[in-house]
Amino acid sequence: MPSDPLNDATTALITLGGQRVWSLLVSVFGDLAPGEGTGIRGPVLSAIMTGMNVRAEATRVALHRLRNDGWITSEKSGRTSLHGLTDFGRTETQQASLRIYAGPHALQGNWRILLMADAAETTEPPRGFLQICPRVFIGPAGDIIPENAMALTGTSMPLWLRRDITPADLCADYATLHRILLTADQALPDGTPLPPTDRAVLRCLIVHNWRRLLLRHPDLPAALYTPDWRAPECRVLVNRLLQRFPRPNLADLSP
Amino acid sequence: MPSDPLNDATTALITLGGQRVWSLLVSVFGDLAPGEGTGIRGPVLSAIMTGMNVRAEATRVALHRLRNDGWITSEKSGRTSLHGLTDFGRTETQQASLRIYAGPHALQGNWRILLMADAAETTEPPRGFLQICPRVFIGPAGDIIPENAMALTGTSMPLWLRRDITPADLCADYATLHRILLTADQALPDGTPLPPTDRAVLRCLIVHNWRRLLLRHPDLPAALYTPDWRAPECRVLVNRLLQRFPRPNLADLSP
Repeated sequence: MPSDPLNDATTALITLGGQRVWSLLVSVFGDLAPGEGTGIRGPVLSAIMTGMNVRAEATRVALHRLRNDGWITSEKSGRTSLHGLTDFGRTETQQASLRIYAGPHALQGNWRILLMADAAETTEPPRGFLQICPRVFIGPAGDIIPENAMALTGTSMPLWLRRDITPADLCADYATLHRILLTADQALPDGTPLPPTDRAVLRCLIVHNWRRLLLRHPDLPAALYTPDWRAPECRVLVNRLLQRFPRPNLADLSP
Repeated sequence: MPSDPLNDATTALITLGGQRVWSLLVSVFGDLAPGEGTGIRGPVLSAIMTGMNVRAEATRVALHRLRNDGWITSEKSGRTSLHGLTDFGRTETQQASLRIYAGPHALQGNWRILLMADAAETTEPPRGFLQICPRVFIGPAGDIIPENAMALTGTSMPLWLRRDITPADLCADYATLHRILLTADQALPDGTPLPPTDRAVLRCLIVHNWRRLLLRHPDLPAALYTPDWRAPECRVLVNRLLQRFPRPNLADLSP
């Protein structure tokens, strides 16, 4: 049996683990139908989920859960349902999309350390910052200094701090995703013809696995992580593959 | 009774409190006989201590204690004793003298913050630094970065941190000393003739009260303290008064 590069890529992405169906569905709606007034017809959604090896029953259960949680709304339209994000679901999705679809510049840039005035007031880290120790947070450079904070910079970023900042499990997960994306990038070069549903499946799997890792850490400059941190390389490949295989028109998706 | 400016100054300095006799004696030896092979004859020491309102019995007890602690050695020389610092006492005294007699430039300069790699290793602050919170220390700028530390700088020093750094009691003590030194500086201008023993008493009281406050905090740049921190102004006045009333030759001191 000859190797099928698309099948290899989707299989590798599917077997990455962490494929909770409701979470997969959020990735699907976020990528294919993020805008107000858009939705995905039941049979189309089933075809995409089947392409991700998700059984119809599991999709039904997950849709039910997402409706209960206020993320998804489903309307009968003739003999089929039309599923779409609620206002709440759309707001949440769009917030995350700013990071998920951001270009490679997003992980560039300088960093700064914030020393907070009072430990008691800083149980929440400043937005986008990571806590190093009580009252000390690190994050991207910027002009706005939060109230009761002192902004500090340094000339070098010591390896021990990069090790403290880099989560070992996430670092390993990025390395795995990086290998899969690199293989897909080479096996599915520019000009590879992909039917709309296959394109939708590939896109959603890429977005989903990228999102799963990305949203588990703040968006810190690459210089803060150890040299084996592959998030920036993953972002470059995610951007390239999503551009190569654009979002299909929902009307083109059969059945 | 006309006001006696010298008496006013010494009385003000004597009544500042914290005049433990053994500590006063250390100031006297540190200022008048710091060098190897120097000493103070018993009757001269008595005259100086009397000038500081210390009773002979209290001086004897304190000398006894300092001998037991290895700071002072006393030798009979004919009918009088010759008291002097031991090697240990001289080393300790000279270490402190570097700060006590340092010029006004000593409190100038920039600051930096050190973030230490591991809280467990930093129960001792880096030399000359003050702890802000676990793993974070502030002190004078410098080129040498301690191992396992990251050097940070900021463009501004917020008032809340200056308040954290400034000890309220010490700040009040400096304000009091500053008023006394300012009055002495004006009441005893250049050219004021002072007999050698009076000069010795005045010097030792100035050094002693300055030393008492100075050695209770690290030598941080003035910019780190609140604007009411009078240590830099005290240092200027201490330097000026000690220059105006130089160390008397011990041989000139009678009896």
